[in-house]
Amino acid sequence: MINVVGATFSALAAALESELLADIPLARAMALKASAYDGDSLTLAAPLAPNVNDKGCAFGGSLASLMTLAGWGLIKLAVDARALDCDIYVQDSSIRYLAPIWQDFAAVARPAAGESFDDFFAALAARGKARMSVHCVVPLADGAAAATLDARFVAFVKR
Amino acid sequence: MINVVGATFSALAAALESELLADIPLARAMALKASAYDGDSLTLAAPLAPNVNDKGCAFGGSLASLMTLAGWGLIKLAVDARALDCDIYVQDSSIRYLAPIWQDFAAVARPAAGESFDDFFAALAARGKARMSVHCVVPLADGAAAATLDARFVAFVKR
Repeated sequence: MINVVGATFSALAAALESELLADIPLARAMALKASAYDGDSLTLAAPLAPNVNDKGCAFGGSLASLMTLAGWGLIKLAVDARALDCDIYVQDSSIRYLAPIWQDFAAVARPAAGESFDDFFAALAARGKARMSVHCVVPLADGAAAATLDARFVAFVKR
Repeated sequence: MINVVGATFSALAAALESELLADIPLARAMALKASAYDGDSLTLAAPLAPNVNDKGCAFGGSLASLMTLAGWGLIKLAVDARALDCDIYVQDSSIRYLAPIWQDFAAVARPAAGESFDDFFAALAARGKARMSVHCVVPLADGAAAATLDARFVAFVKR
């Protein structure tokens, strides 16, 4: 659990990055970085070189991994900010690969439309378990989406 | 392109593994292996250690990557067997994470229900482009699915 008492958003993002790199070998292989966090959206970035496919553009598995981790991290930071200790799992996801990516890339995760952290934490307090849907996008330089992910996560309060 | 003239299925799987490991850094990081191929299904395997998450079970991004590569490889081997030179891309995928995985794992890819390579290659011959849907499963030791992927791929004949 990240210690968030009094931490700034940028310190939180840095702490999440350290935790992901320490715990998840594939995050290290991807050279993942947490590049922005504002409490409502989280951006994880990755350089192209360790994440290419046979064609020299971004590997779909790297995009899936980065978007999944961005969604997971968005919930993780909110959970930690409330000093809760939870296991968070991805349950399912739907991914669209819309355009090849030929440069370094980043995934921006936000709560899905109609989702709120208030509802999520109310359920977590009531039942020790809660679900949250997240929307994530990998934008191209012109702002169009190169890839999107819609995923559901579930969190369990550790006993 | 893998040279498949006269090759056995196991030689084809080995050639695919070599190509994936040479071209895709994340496949190397995952220590991916092609463990079985029979012309109609392809199995890719990965050890747990380089593919763990924060909880010590299989990382969702590793599962997504392995299943996506199994689907991609299934089409790649069929394309190569016909001495065609294509770029193959994943277009979209739907993934379900059904149970945590605490050991080495493998992803088995097959054409989705109703899909046939005959239709795929007819379209590829007619238009230089064809789509194919693939179903992939990561089984637990008891045969139940720990994760599934349904994905659409598109192949373009290189010009």
